[in-house]
Amino acid sequence: MKAVQVVGYDEPLRMTDVPEPAVTGPFDVIVKIGGAGVCRTDLHILEGQWKEKSGVTLPYTIGHENAGWVHAVGSAVTNVAEGDKVIVHPLITCGLCRACRFGDDVHCTQSQFPGIDTAGGYAEYLKTSARSVVKIDDSLEPADVAALADAGLTAYHAAAKAARRLRPGDKCVVIGAGGLGHIGIQVLKAISAAELIVVDRNPEAVKLAVSIGADHGVVGDGSQVSQVLDLTGGNGAETVIDFVGEGGATRDGIAMLRRAGDYHVVGYGENIDVPTIDVISTEINLIGNLVGSYNDLCELMVLAAQGRVKLHTARYSLDDFQEALDDLDAGRIRGRAILVP
Amino acid sequence: MKAVQVVGYDEPLRMTDVPEPAVTGPFDVIVKIGGAGVCRTDLHILEGQWKEKSGVTLPYTIGHENAGWVHAVGSAVTNVAEGDKVIVHPLITCGLCRACRFGDDVHCTQSQFPGIDTAGGYAEYLKTSARSVVKIDDSLEPADVAALADAGLTAYHAAAKAARRLRPGDKCVVIGAGGLGHIGIQVLKAISAAELIVVDRNPEAVKLAVSIGADHGVVGDGSQVSQVLDLTGGNGAETVIDFVGEGGATRDGIAMLRRAGDYHVVGYGENIDVPTIDVISTEINLIGNLVGSYNDLCELMVLAAQGRVKLHTARYSLDDFQEALDDLDAGRIRGRAILVP
Amino acid sequence: MKAVQVVGYDEPLRMTDVPEPAVTGPFDVIVKIGGAGVCRTDLHILEGQWKEKSGVTLPYTIGHENAGWVHAVGSAVTNVAEGDKVIVHPLITCGLCRACRFGDDVHCTQSQFPGIDTAGGYAEYLKTSARSVVKIDDSLEPADVAALADAGLTAYHAAAKAARRLRPGDKCVVIGAGGLGHIGIQVLKAISAAELIVVDRNPEAVKLAVSIGADHGVVGDGSQVSQVLDLTGGNGAETVIDFVGEGGATRDGIAMLRRAGDYHVVGYGENIDVPTIDVISTEINLIGNLVGSYNDLCELMVLAAQGRVKLHTARYSLDDFQEALDDLDAGRIRGRAILVP
Amino acid sequence: MKAVQVVGYDEPLRMTDVPEPAVTGPFDVIVKIGGAGVCRTDLHILEGQWKEKSGVTLPYTIGHENAGWVHAVGSAVTNVAEGDKVIVHPLITCGLCRACRFGDDVHCTQSQFPGIDTAGGYAEYLKTSARSVVKIDDSLEPADVAALADAGLTAYHAAAKAARRLRPGDKCVVIGAGGLGHIGIQVLKAISAAELIVVDRNPEAVKLAVSIGADHGVVGDGSQVSQVLDLTGGNGAETVIDFVGEGGATRDGIAMLRRAGDYHVVGYGENIDVPTIDVISTEINLIGNLVGSYNDLCELMVLAAQGRVKLHTARYSLDDFQEALDDLDAGRIRGRAILVP
Repeated sequence: MKAVQVVGYDEPLRMTDVPEPAVTGPFDVIVKIGGAGVCRTDLHILEGQWKEKSGVTLPYTIGHENAGWVHAVGSAVTNVAEGDKVIVHPLITCGLCRACRFGDDVHCTQSQFPGIDTAGGYAEYLKTSARSVVKIDDSLEPADVAALADAGLTAYHAAAKAARRLRPGDKCVVIGAGGLGHIGIQVLKAISAAELIVVDRNPEAVKLAVSIGADHGVVGDGSQVSQVLDLTGGNGAETVIDFVGEGGATRDGIAMLRRAGDYHVVGYGENIDVPTIDVISTEINLIGNLVGSYNDLCELMVLAAQGRVKLHTARYSLDDFQEALDDLDAGRIRGRAILVP
Repeated sequence: MKAVQVVGYDEPLRMTDVPEPAVTGPFDVIVKIGGAGVCRTDLHILEGQWKEKSGVTLPYTIGHENAGWVHAVGSAVTNVAEGDKVIVHPLITCGLCRACRFGDDVHCTQSQFPGIDTAGGYAEYLKTSARSVVKIDDSLEPADVAALADAGLTAYHAAAKAARRLRPGDKCVVIGAGGLGHIGIQVLKAISAAELIVVDRNPEAVKLAVSIGADHGVVGDGSQVSQVLDLTGGNGAETVIDFVGEGGATRDGIAMLRRAGDYHVVGYGENIDVPTIDVISTEINLIGNLVGSYNDLCELMVLAAQGRVKLHTARYSLDDFQEALDDLDAGRIRGRAILVP
Repeated sequence: MKAVQVVGYDEPLRMTDVPEPAVTGPFDVIVKIGGAGVCRTDLHILEGQWKEKSGVTLPYTIGHENAGWVHAVGSAVTNVAEGDKVIVHPLITCGLCRACRFGDDVHCTQSQFPGIDTAGGYAEYLKTSARSVVKIDDSLEPADVAALADAGLTAYHAAAKAARRLRPGDKCVVIGAGGLGHIGIQVLKAISAAELIVVDRNPEAVKLAVSIGADHGVVGDGSQVSQVLDLTGGNGAETVIDFVGEGGATRDGIAMLRRAGDYHVVGYGENIDVPTIDVISTEINLIGNLVGSYNDLCELMVLAAQGRVKLHTARYSLDDFQEALDDLDAGRIRGRAILVP
Repeated sequence: MKAVQVVGYDEPLRMTDVPEPAVTGPFDVIVKIGGAGVCRTDLHILEGQWKEKSGVTLPYTIGHENAGWVHAVGSAVTNVAEGDKVIVHPLITCGLCRACRFGDDVHCTQSQFPGIDTAGGYAEYLKTSARSVVKIDDSLEPADVAALADAGLTAYHAAAKAARRLRPGDKCVVIGAGGLGHIGIQVLKAISAAELIVVDRNPEAVKLAVSIGADHGVVGDGSQVSQVLDLTGGNGAETVIDFVGEGGATRDGIAMLRRAGDYHVVGYGENIDVPTIDVISTEINLIGNLVGSYNDLCELMVLAAQGRVKLHTARYSLDDFQEALDDLDAGRIRGRAILVP
């Protein structure tokens, strides 16, 4: 089958012909790819940023945001059958460790991550596990939801965790109205009545955020902290979700918090550097957020099927993978690029 | 009455004669002091560290860890009566703001802090509020529990918050086995079955910690992180409570965490400086802890009455306040110094 | 001033002239009534159903759903001032007991209930407490929101408590689409993405429920349990909120539950009669719901100001109190009747 | 191998020779039985009480409380290996349904229950699943802990759930100091500082409860409700855990509750019959409890290894199964009877 592979760091990806993956274990599921999201992480992989962390042996097939149809299943698979339309959770988890047994499968002690440390979905077929496939509603198409598998799932996870503490009248600041922030805003509108304040450097992104439900838009022109304090009666917000995590966002985010507030870290890049006396005297919480669990993905697919979470996508043929990556790198894509084999 | 006052920064405290406080508001409570804890914060006040923060006008009476007997009450006070034995919550709170109405009175939007920004308890009488006095068990003496009013309450608050997530088999690291850590260990033993690992630079403090229930003692000789990792099967601990917050404790504490673990900040001094990628890739939480609420203090007094939380104290006459401060400054006090009028 | 009083059980209410209430305690607040809701409980009071429970001495002024303007305040009141537009929480609570200190003021150990056990709001002025008045948004009128003070607050409390467990894709059944159910549905839509199934015997009420956002309407014609099971894939719903509590609703509600589901009791009348083996083998929870807390009322007023919770009202002059009660008794009122002095 | 089977209802069990179970699926685990608990449910099975519910085909091997050593494993089993000492969770669960994915495996939509609806552990070998085996500490012997697999696990689950709400000073009533209550008391002492009040009709059981840590013992002589009210200052207890569920225990348990209290149903037999007005006016919760999850069993094994939970057992050879059942039926067993092959 066709597969797009990393053949060297700082070298272009290469389309090659590789054997189709086959069922070898009892829980294996082979998915015929309907869409694979093109993610900024893919660019970072090529730059070698994940080389040490993943320890993957080159060449390997890239692509970690996948959806499609079940093509074949192992002997012990009972939750899906050939032909089912599915989105693929980014991790393959063991189901047996304490974290998995608590439903916290993202912290599985022996997970695999197709597209990062094993063969991914820029291909015609992907091998994953029964524990990773979520059946999607008839109304949804794999190519439309593929990019929700990782980026969208991360945004859902953070927004849903944050929303558990948000009550009507509480203020929630969203820093960053890009891909993740866009999903986060839609999720927050769906499951909370908090007042949403969206901060982004890009005035167009702020406008878009307001058009999908943000109550206030703040352009990050240097006055963003004082603007947020003004919008919160000088007290700060109960919750800040930071989808940026660089360029001063962490300092801003913490400065926007109300006493006893929650600062959710999602985006990353810079260091959090905060005096302990500030953390204890205001009793704030700094909360890490990784990708969502399998059940989180099921819930996000419910919101997608209800039309409450939508994503703008640009489709490319798998053969045009380089064009998609170039467009992403050059900032020419609105929403997400999707490769369709 | 006699009162010990701050008359200038970097000057000694001075014993003076001031008028007894009188009931003027409906919720006022006058407490005859039975014991006032001598706290390291008192030394910091004298050094001027709180000058800006508190904005207090000199001279004023110091002392923020107080217990005694109710001497007089305002017209609307129904929860205590003259003669009641009480410990005094360090804050006077409004009872009307949203935080107070949630029981989160530590975040009251208009609280006062006797001994810090208004007259405190190094005196014969203290003026506080009906919302601040907790009746204590007959078996407890004011001078024995006074130091639990602030330092002990902070340790209780952090330990009780941490314990809500701790299950049998979980590991909890306590950094710092001094005054607060000592209380924290006793509280954790009383309300959880977590495995306690106590870290301190002082081998004597570690020994003491083990004698009151810590499951493992680790002397902080530079190898403390690897020792904790060894004790946790290489995974790190579900929870770390840091009563130190300086000298590298924050970096150590975060390095001792298991994935999805909680790092509780209680002690302070240095900055937390942590890459966002570390926060999100392990999905850890950094949790601030301030002093406990009124209800927290009630619960701590239950544990004290049950004999589950004990504090070693050294009593000084109020007249000998300078000797008590000198002994504290010189490290000559085991447990806490208490001034008794 | 004019006041409508209970002068005897099974006798009509009587309009009389009584002295205006005056400030006597430091926390007293006198409210000039802008609207007082006419509630079915008022009919029950006249029938003597509350005689024993309330122990009130006749004659007394009835009316427990009140809103208006602050007319006078006691010496210690800091949260409202003369002229403020307010809704009145139905209870006067102490602020000092453990329940009040946890924000759970509904379980105050020494509360008063104006309109039930002391003078209420069918009058020109009402005496309440600083702890009971919630300032409302400029856009809201007292007569429009008065009926949210008790009935609406109860519905909010139950819906918000239930919503804490509801995730996208979960099913929530609302039994009873009358006054409380109507508010409950609007609240659930505002703060959750659960799929709402509304059950009522009255086809018109079901239609109305669907028009304000219920996902499915079920007419209670005897087949309601099997209809709900069909709508939930045979599994039952994660949550049932029963605003009826009589006529078989409790048996139906429990039968509609999924394993590990929550059955919320709000309406009352009949007994819950359920085999313990059914409770343990499915591990369900039966959860009581009383009126909401002060903070709940603040949150409900946020939803009202945002236009997310609306109530249809019919205004009557206070002089026409008898007509309002007669219309209520005869089922001639859509939404709620409000007396305006 | 030898196996003790149900050959007909109201007939004695019969020892027979059956083929040893063999690995057929990838997650199968064969356990060499080290001890099988003899439970009152086994007597009920023989009386036909489970005939309809289980739908099991006779003859089949009984025994649902099992521990031993891993004898053989399927191809996909990674968490245990031959020779491991294990206790067996009573359910075989799918790991794929939404409940399993939340760690709530007790509500698995397709679980099996060896000893109830498929072959159990009154035998030399038992077939179970990788998802059901928990490795136990070297210091524990299978025959000593086997009876914790079901009865003990149920008690742990209820006590741990209850403890999540219990704070120092709260009162917790335990109704029934028999097998489950005995475990429940030890668990509550280990993980909470609540004041324990134990109620039992049998004065010997009450004495035993006090000897293992109950703060108050109440003999159920008809005055138990008023005794509990006296011990709780007339207010009732924050929590009641009812391990009896018959003979009036449910009415008593609810009457012993404080406002906003939790009544945990564990034992069963009679109906709960309670007016809805009582449930809402005091806002109490009635909470079902089934057996614990896999992770609950891991935690209980931690407490057992720490010596915090102990169980008295009487060992019988597997050949003497009839004697063990007779002794149980006649009330001649202190603690639990264990069959050892």
